[in-house]
Amino acid sequence: MRRPHLSLQPDPDSAPLRISQLETPAALVDLDRLSQNLDRMAEYGAIHGLSLRPHVKTHKSPRIAAEQMRLGAVGLTCATPRELEVMADVTSDLLLAYPLLGAPKLARVLSIPQKVRLTVAVDSMIAVDELAATARIMDRPVQVYVELDLGMHRVGVQSVDDAIALAMRIAEQPPLEFAGITFYPGHIREPVGQQEAKLARLRSDLHAALERMERARVRPRVVSGGSTPAAWRMHEIPGVTEVRPGTYVYNDRTTAEIGACSWDDCAFTVLATVVSTAVSGQAVIDAGCKALGREPVRGVAGEGFAALIDRPEVTVQRMSEEHGILDLTRTSWRPRVGDVVRLVPNHVCIVVHLNDTIHGVRGELVEATWPVSARGRGGAPAGVV
Amino acid sequence: MRRPHLSLQPDPDSAPLRISQLETPAALVDLDRLSQNLDRMAEYGAIHGLSLRPHVKTHKSPRIAAEQMRLGAVGLTCATPRELEVMADVTSDLLLAYPLLGAPKLARVLSIPQKVRLTVAVDSMIAVDELAATARIMDRPVQVYVELDLGMHRVGVQSVDDAIALAMRIAEQPPLEFAGITFYPGHIREPVGQQEAKLARLRSDLHAALERMERARVRPRVVSGGSTPAAWRMHEIPGVTEVRPGTYVYNDRTTAEIGACSWDDCAFTVLATVVSTAVSGQAVIDAGCKALGREPVRGVAGEGFAALIDRPEVTVQRMSEEHGILDLTRTSWRPRVGDVVRLVPNHVCIVVHLNDTIHGVRGELVEATWPVSARGRGGAPAGVV
Repeated sequence: MRRPHLSLQPDPDSAPLRISQLETPAALVDLDRLSQNLDRMAEYGAIHGLSLRPHVKTHKSPRIAAEQMRLGAVGLTCATPRELEVMADVTSDLLLAYPLLGAPKLARVLSIPQKVRLTVAVDSMIAVDELAATARIMDRPVQVYVELDLGMHRVGVQSVDDAIALAMRIAEQPPLEFAGITFYPGHIREPVGQQEAKLARLRSDLHAALERMERARVRPRVVSGGSTPAAWRMHEIPGVTEVRPGTYVYNDRTTAEIGACSWDDCAFTVLATVVSTAVSGQAVIDAGCKALGREPVRGVAGEGFAALIDRPEVTVQRMSEEHGILDLTRTSWRPRVGDVVRLVPNHVCIVVHLNDTIHGVRGELVEATWPVSARGRGGAPAGVV
Repeated sequence: MRRPHLSLQPDPDSAPLRISQLETPAALVDLDRLSQNLDRMAEYGAIHGLSLRPHVKTHKSPRIAAEQMRLGAVGLTCATPRELEVMADVTSDLLLAYPLLGAPKLARVLSIPQKVRLTVAVDSMIAVDELAATARIMDRPVQVYVELDLGMHRVGVQSVDDAIALAMRIAEQPPLEFAGITFYPGHIREPVGQQEAKLARLRSDLHAALERMERARVRPRVVSGGSTPAAWRMHEIPGVTEVRPGTYVYNDRTTAEIGACSWDDCAFTVLATVVSTAVSGQAVIDAGCKALGREPVRGVAGEGFAALIDRPEVTVQRMSEEHGILDLTRTSWRPRVGDVVRLVPNHVCIVVHLNDTIHGVRGELVEATWPVSARGRGGAPAGVV
């Protein structure tokens, strides 16, 4: 197994902490599992000739982004201006996979260093025209993807005609350049083996769209798809050239329940302390919804908001802001006040967003601590990476 | 109406921004409503002779905490070490209303400046003994409340005998000092008018507990209760001397739906931009669960995760991390891409925790911007207040 990149190695000037010395709640990442997860997706892309453009929303860390680039990613995907700004130090090829609207945000995004080849996804004429006007004023070339709705019903144009019209509008407004199409197959969250009908529909819809665009001589250089649960199937969708998975770096309870990773691939846990067992039949931990989020298991039935990594049958059943209530009905385990537990959250991207720092661990040792530099909305202060 | 404290007045060295100049999503606080909310609770406490010890978890801001102190609060309530550290600059009387366990957290909490009279709530012998051991080593006096479960079934001893035993254990271990009892009536979330049965039960349980403790010569100097929805009823519970409401400063959709405030008392909104209307019947805004949280309406039936402040019938029905889907089925209003909206979240404490800065507004003007200084877990860097 490849070892992780130097920047995730032990901080050389600090004595190694043990996990037991950390104040709880704390966010931990198993460095070996992270390394395996990074390798596995890089290999998937390489084997199938799919460009890998990981979404940084999950880790929000330039250190992990740099490792993704080292392993062959063609660039990075971002959702917010802050993510773009922080990641501009890591790569010169960034995609904002999010509609860019509003003068303050437009000016901020188009101000990222000129050395960065910036791509923006759009699904409306208004967004194209505002982007074009700002890009002209700022003399900033911008690559543009047209976003298609291929089943998620969140954003994305509803017809191929609309996609073609947008692509033409982009092409006629330099310094914009039509670069491709993008879709987000986040509606495919069925357990592995039950995704076939939706994948078949996606395959035929994309095929039809590409044929129509070809006839209209609107040729997307890039066809960008893929989120973590469906990323592993994108080589089965002809035409797709690029995938943008995010969650795969850490994985989470939902990803494991769907079967898109194994439980042992879950690299991210929240360390928590049992703070009360006064009410019988439950134990209270110091990780509530301000530490775990309140995300359901998606795609499959599943109770609770997180599960113990070494006892997945024990879940967080109720939460207050700083209290999590462990359901002890499916276990004979009875924790004591002061015991420390580790939890796999339902949706890791949300939990990372709640933390300022992450501790990288191997076994019981804390080998590295890094800031979640791209968390938040404002400009990043100097030196946060 | 009293004007807010100086520190919430316009920043003198910056030209006033307009709300339309803010990048979205952004957290806004209506300064007039904030001021009225602060006044109203201060007056309630003063009229009924109840000490007000506001919980800072809602605002996490030393500026607002200072205003609460100026209006007569006896001290502040905190849930985390960071909140204690930041608020130690505001008052010399702090309560950690949270079980304090684990060596790292004990050492950190007992290191807040000696000038602060520190009180900690406990519900277990283990917590008392660990606290006593650390307090002895650090030569740090600590006031201790015993937490009773009076219906919430989250933390708190289950019997008055247990409370008396804990109080005695505290009293025999200086530098600990038994200071009182505390309970959290967070289970009382019924709409106003439907809380009577639970309030009657609370009244009789507390009465019985205080009688038993009196017979055992365990005399709580303080009886601390009250969360925002139930705080307004605490003068009807004989024996209660102190209330700890948090949410009242900003209020939220849940508080308004319960009837514990009016819709016009909601001071906190999330500013968001409509970024897509491509899918018919819905509009997508740039505030998803990373900006709004995913908290249900509690206490009463209620759909969605937030509602437009000027069109409460329009709610955020679905969310991704950075996308909120407005449900347009109950309105004839049809927003355009680029329109800006303001949303009242279901649970404001969670939303504040997602933000680094808050903008104080009057009408269309941004009059002040302050950091959410006590957000997060680590030590606060210098100058964050």
